[in-house]
Amino acid sequence: MDLRLAAWAEGEREAITDRLVEWLRIPSISAHPDRAADVRASAELCARMLTDAGLEHAEVLETAGAPAVYADWLHAGPDAPTFLIYGHHDVQPVDPLELWETPPFEPTFVDGELRGRGSVDDKGQTLYEIEALRGLLRVEGALPVNVKVLVEGEEEVGSPHFEALLEQHADRLACDGVVVSDTTMWGPDVPSTCVGMRGLVAYDVSVRTAKGDLHSGVFGGAVPNPAHLVASIAAALHDAENRVTIPGFYDRVRPLTEAEERSLAELPFDEGAWKAMAGVQRLDGEAGWSTLARLGYRPTCEVVGIGSGYQGDGIKTIVPATGNLKVTFRLVADQDPAEVDAAFRSWLAERIPDGVECTVTPEGGVAPCLTPVDHPYVGALTTAIGRVWGRDVLFTREGGSGPEEALARVLDAPVLFLGVGYPDDRFHAPNERLVMDQFWKGLLAAGELWHELAKVGRVG
Amino acid sequence: MDLRLAAWAEGEREAITDRLVEWLRIPSISAHPDRAADVRASAELCARMLTDAGLEHAEVLETAGAPAVYADWLHAGPDAPTFLIYGHHDVQPVDPLELWETPPFEPTFVDGELRGRGSVDDKGQTLYEIEALRGLLRVEGALPVNVKVLVEGEEEVGSPHFEALLEQHADRLACDGVVVSDTTMWGPDVPSTCVGMRGLVAYDVSVRTAKGDLHSGVFGGAVPNPAHLVASIAAALHDAENRVTIPGFYDRVRPLTEAEERSLAELPFDEGAWKAMAGVQRLDGEAGWSTLARLGYRPTCEVVGIGSGYQGDGIKTIVPATGNLKVTFRLVADQDPAEVDAAFRSWLAERIPDGVECTVTPEGGVAPCLTPVDHPYVGALTTAIGRVWGRDVLFTREGGSGPEEALARVLDAPVLFLGVGYPDDRFHAPNERLVMDQFWKGLLAAGELWHELAKVGRVG
Repeated sequence: MDLRLAAWAEGEREAITDRLVEWLRIPSISAHPDRAADVRASAELCARMLTDAGLEHAEVLETAGAPAVYADWLHAGPDAPTFLIYGHHDVQPVDPLELWETPPFEPTFVDGELRGRGSVDDKGQTLYEIEALRGLLRVEGALPVNVKVLVEGEEEVGSPHFEALLEQHADRLACDGVVVSDTTMWGPDVPSTCVGMRGLVAYDVSVRTAKGDLHSGVFGGAVPNPAHLVASIAAALHDAENRVTIPGFYDRVRPLTEAEERSLAELPFDEGAWKAMAGVQRLDGEAGWSTLARLGYRPTCEVVGIGSGYQGDGIKTIVPATGNLKVTFRLVADQDPAEVDAAFRSWLAERIPDGVECTVTPEGGVAPCLTPVDHPYVGALTTAIGRVWGRDVLFTREGGSGPEEALARVLDAPVLFLGVGYPDDRFHAPNERLVMDQFWKGLLAAGELWHELAKVGRVG
Repeated sequence: MDLRLAAWAEGEREAITDRLVEWLRIPSISAHPDRAADVRASAELCARMLTDAGLEHAEVLETAGAPAVYADWLHAGPDAPTFLIYGHHDVQPVDPLELWETPPFEPTFVDGELRGRGSVDDKGQTLYEIEALRGLLRVEGALPVNVKVLVEGEEEVGSPHFEALLEQHADRLACDGVVVSDTTMWGPDVPSTCVGMRGLVAYDVSVRTAKGDLHSGVFGGAVPNPAHLVASIAAALHDAENRVTIPGFYDRVRPLTEAEERSLAELPFDEGAWKAMAGVQRLDGEAGWSTLARLGYRPTCEVVGIGSGYQGDGIKTIVPATGNLKVTFRLVADQDPAEVDAAFRSWLAERIPDGVECTVTPEGGVAPCLTPVDHPYVGALTTAIGRVWGRDVLFTREGGSGPEEALARVLDAPVLFLGVGYPDDRFHAPNERLVMDQFWKGLLAAGELWHELAKVGRVG
């Protein structure tokens, strides 16, 4: 382990936490238009911190939405590999405010954790990367690799302009690998790294069977009922074994590698504790797969909303005129959003009877993202993490979807996930926290990572 | 035809329409608590009209809700049969007000129709009964049968206290037959009488699978989804032929009589016009039955509401925590609400997995009601209607449910339906109307009916 970096971090503890607290005080909620000035202030502070760390060309990058931040340090030489660090400086809304034990934008230390919106997602996880660079530049005078930093400002609203930003600055952002600092590891004694995130395609399906609601006594039994229609469509999405019924849906799913199989078997999983955390009394899911496999390794289909007819208390004797179904598909490598889209639309069209109006609105599409576990950069990452945590590093996948797929695709580079959050850090929820011990370890792991990646050199 | 009654009605035309307009001006909306004084004023006016007509013992009958009205004329002698006339003086709400072409409580004559809330449902149809009694008492000095009149004040809110009212006053209301004046006939050239109304059982089914909504990326695929559950329950209610799947549901359905089969075949039905009236592009329903049979003759199951998860614009990536299903069953003779209730609950219980909370709230039950078409009083009714309309009278059934079943059951008497509304009179809708020609014919038919029923005498 790089003891000089560790000693430097020890000496800078107070200065670094002060900087983190200053950043967390800015309510950079990208979902709220009236917080645009705060999002910009957050970007400007981030750019200053990058300059202070010793990076160059720090700049607030404009998008059609909220601003991102860029900086780089490119003096490791043309033979050294170049890496792009990804983080984001915008945060989630804070509702319901009354559930916060401490004010969301007054960062508060409680038993070794820092409470506040953005602490783990993602200012804290971005800052340990920046501070590792500052530390290395201070104690070693240089970085072992070329580094570029891109800190997004719209991740919490689905990164609507991120791909355009990547394309616009593709030359400047070109790299041999991406290091994403926005994920979790399994738990306190189980260091792990994410190697995949699921993709997402989503639809709003609206049907109309009549001009208006009809009296169920007068018309019921002879007119189409859109509640029956959306229910039958929703029910037909899965078979009795909870497999998705869209033809060809599983065809491209890539089998797990041996290393992934092993990680899946070795990851400790307390089903009772997980059910309690989820607040459920039972588990469900695709037959033949464990709960862990269902979360991240397998593609899924979820009805996230269904509605037709009367929704209030009691009963209204109507035949509804309209129905709505909101469906999301989580995809895994190598499923193709365009293929799933075509298969779903054709499956759906067969189920809409003549004389029923149907509107299908796609709600965004993200391809799944999977970094091969045998990639040499992944080896460098697990070596770095393993050295700091003192344990073998397991592989995980995350069930959600993020901008990582666009990074991999547009920049044509493997994505490494150095994440130190815990799953119960209350991402997006009240009382979001960052476990400070993980923050300090993350800083050291980042330092180790650059040295390990330098050893691997350029690949491909 | 009783020409003296016709001549009397001709001379009273203006006075009778004035009385109707006065009654229609009172916004006796039973659903709106702030209209309680208007409902009472409507009851009091009704009682005065009954007294003016020559009936005795006119009285506003209190209930636990809105008041009803009672009056009688019992001088036809102990050997003459006794009939109870049923109507109601409360009306539906008027929303959406902007769709009314004339103000709902400013009755307006347009091309031979009287527009206004309550015109056909049911003040107009109650008033021709009252005026027929007044006319007969004026021109003949007596009625050929004993008559009791009961005008309810809560029909439009589901008659919550009507059965209690019938039971409380069972002795005073005892009769040989009930004449309901609150239904329709087929159309201008097709006089008909209703012989049955469907019963109704209804349920609100709520399920909960988790404490709160969960992130679909993090939890989706491994936790139960209540949207899937309510959809699969709703979808399982019908088979591919649109038959209700609850075991035993059809076991007690009484086959149609020959006379009913004949009426069903002879009733003119313009499918295109009916679809246009319903505002639908296609028809659906139980395989093997015509649209007319599906409306009234066959029992049905309708999902009147389904809801789970996100209902707004776009998509939210959640697994919902709760789901809701509202189901109504329309029953026909001789289905038993208690049997259907038991069958549905046991069918449903099999579909709720362990670990899912489920609450089933019954929302009222009404048995179906069917008057035998070969009952001598039904013969008197069709003779009376046929004489006034100059055509054969067909039998129909109505798909809805009303207080008629309670009348038949509590008073143990057959129910006759003398109704002059048209199906397109916009019951419960904006621009409700009464075709005045039907009103005047109804008045004469009521006069004929009492004479015909007197000829039949007491039955059973």
